[in-house]
Amino acid sequence: MMNMTAQMMDSSLAMKSMSGLDMAAMQDLIECCSACEQACTVCADDMMAMGMTGMSKCMSMCLDCADMTHTMMRMMLRPSGYDMQVMMAQMDSCMKMCTACADECMMHAEMSEECKMCAEACRQCAAACERMMSAMKTMMPLK
Amino acid sequence: MMNMTAQMMDSSLAMKSMSGLDMAAMQDLIECCSACEQACTVCADDMMAMGMTGMSKCMSMCLDCADMTHTMMRMMLRPSGYDMQVMMAQMDSCMKMCTACADECMMHAEMSEECKMCAEACRQCAAACERMMSAMKTMMPLK
Amino acid sequence: MMNMTAQMMDSSLAMKSMSGLDMAAMQDLIECCSACEQACTVCADDMMAMGMTGMSKCMSMCLDCADMTHTMMRMMLRPSGYDMQVMMAQMDSCMKMCTACADECMMHAEMSEECKMCAEACRQCAAACERMMSAMKTMMPLK
Amino acid sequence: MMNMTAQMMDSSLAMKSMSGLDMAAMQDLIECCSACEQACTVCADDMMAMGMTGMSKCMSMCLDCADMTHTMMRMMLRPSGYDMQVMMAQMDSCMKMCTACADECMMHAEMSEECKMCAEACRQCAAACERMMSAMKTMMPLK
Repeated sequence: MMNMTAQMMDSSLAMKSMSGLDMAAMQDLIECCSACEQACTVCADDMMAMGMTGMSKCMSMCLDCADMTHTMMRMMLRPSGYDMQVMMAQMDSCMKMCTACADECMMHAEMSEECKMCAEACRQCAAACERMMSAMKTMMPLK
Repeated sequence: MMNMTAQMMDSSLAMKSMSGLDMAAMQDLIECCSACEQACTVCADDMMAMGMTGMSKCMSMCLDCADMTHTMMRMMLRPSGYDMQVMMAQMDSCMKMCTACADECMMHAEMSEECKMCAEACRQCAAACERMMSAMKTMMPLK
Repeated sequence: MMNMTAQMMDSSLAMKSMSGLDMAAMQDLIECCSACEQACTVCADDMMAMGMTGMSKCMSMCLDCADMTHTMMRMMLRPSGYDMQVMMAQMDSCMKMCTACADECMMHAEMSEECKMCAEACRQCAAACERMMSAMKTMMPLK
Repeated sequence: MMNMTAQMMDSSLAMKSMSGLDMAAMQDLIECCSACEQACTVCADDMMAMGMTGMSKCMSMCLDCADMTHTMMRMMLRPSGYDMQVMMAQMDSCMKMCTACADECMMHAEMSEECKMCAEACRQCAAACERMMSAMKTMMPLK
C-alpha cells in the first residue's frame, strides 16, 4: 500500500513530465531521510539527558545530520525544481554526513541503545542515497 | 508494531523521568506532523507547476504549515526540554495553522487532487494537536 | 540603510496590497528571530562541548527555540500567506518559547558567557514578538 | 564591530580547540547563508503573488536554496561536530545550488526586481562557499 506522500508525488504535475526517474528509489530515500531526521533528533536529546562527557561531537553531528536529511527530503518532495547536478551533489553530501554520523554513534553503541538505533537509521539513509545516485547516473549522462 | 522513533522515544532517559504523558497521543502527533509537512511541501510544489492564478495564498500557507508542523514535530522529539506551557502554546498555534491551511486547500479541491489530499493531512494534524492538548490538560494543572 | 531583506519585503507584490502593517516592527522581528536562532544554535553547541551535567534542559530548549524562531521568521517573510489569527498564535508561542529559554539560560549565566548572550538574544526576540502583537492588535479587530 | 553570533563563535569552547580555521571566511559564509535564505524565501513568495506561468522551476529552486543555505549555516554554527570532509561536500553542494538558483532567477530579472536581488544574494553565497572551501583546502591535507 502506498502512503499519502507517495500517492501525491505520483500524481503531481511535475513528476508526470519527467521520465526515467526511479520512483521506488526516490520514495525509499524520502522515507529514510524522514526516519533518519527523527532518529538523530531523539538521539541527540537522549545524549544530552545522559550528561556524559565525550559525547559532544556525536550530539553535534546528530543535529547536523537531522538538518541535512531534512533538506534532502524537502528537495525530493519538490519535483518542479529538480536540477540533477545539484541533486547529485546533495545526495553525495547527505551520504557522507549519514556515514560519518553512523560511525560516531557506533562508538557509543554499547552505552546507548539510542545511539545504536540512530546509527542504523543513518546507515539505511546513506544506502538509500547511494541507490538513488546509482539510479540517476544510469538514467542520464551527467556532464 | 512500533516504528523506530516510537521505540527510541519510549526508551529515552528524559521520557522515563516523566509520568502521565499520553505516549500514544504524542506518537500520533509526531506522525501526523511528519505526514502534514510532506503533504504541504508536495502540494505547494504542485500548485507552482499548475501555474494558475489565485493560488498564491494557498501555496504560501502550505509552506508556512510545512515549517510549523516540522517545528512542532521536533519539539515533541526532544523530551529533555519539555516545557508544558510552551508546548500548549505551540500546539494551539499548529492547530490553527493546520485548520487555516486545510480550509484554503479545500477551496481548490475540485481542481487539484493534491490540495484535497493535503487538506486531509492538515485536518488530521489539527485533530492530533487537539487530542494531545486535551491529554495534557487532564494531566496537569496549568497556571 | 535598509538591508536587502527589508528592501525585498518593501517592494514585494503581496506587501503592496496590504495596508496598516507596521513594517518597522515586522522587520525588527525578522532580524531578532534570525539573531535568536543563531545564538541558540551556538549556545547549545557550546554547552555540549562543556560536558557539564544539569544542562540538558537548557540545551534542548535552545534547540526548540532555534527551530521556533526560524519558523516565525519564515512566516513573516511570506506575505502572500498572511493569516492574522495564525500569526498572532505563533507570535504568542514564540514569545513564550523565547522567554522560557532566556530564563533557563540565565541560570547558567555565571558559568557560561554563551548562555548569557543567548538569553539576551531570546529576551530581545520575545520583546519584538510583543511589539508586533501590539501593532497587529491596534491595526485590526480580531474576533 | 562584531555581531553577536561572531562573538559567540569566537568565545565558544569548541572553536578554541581548533586552529587554522579562517574565522573571517566562516563568519562571512554564515552571514551570506542567512541573507540568501531570506532572499530566496521572499523571492519565492513574490513569484507566487505574481501568478505568472513559467516560473515554477524558479520558485521551487528558491525554496530548495532556502533550505540548503539554512542547513549550511546551522552546520557552521556547530563547531563541536565539525567533520571537514562532510563540510567540504556540503559547501560544494551549497555552491552548486546557489549558482543554479542565481542562473534561474536571472532569467526573470527584467520582470522581477525580487528575482534580481535574490540572484545577487545567491551569487554572494556561492562565492562565500568557494572562499571557505579554498581556505579549508589550504589548511588541511584532505584525503
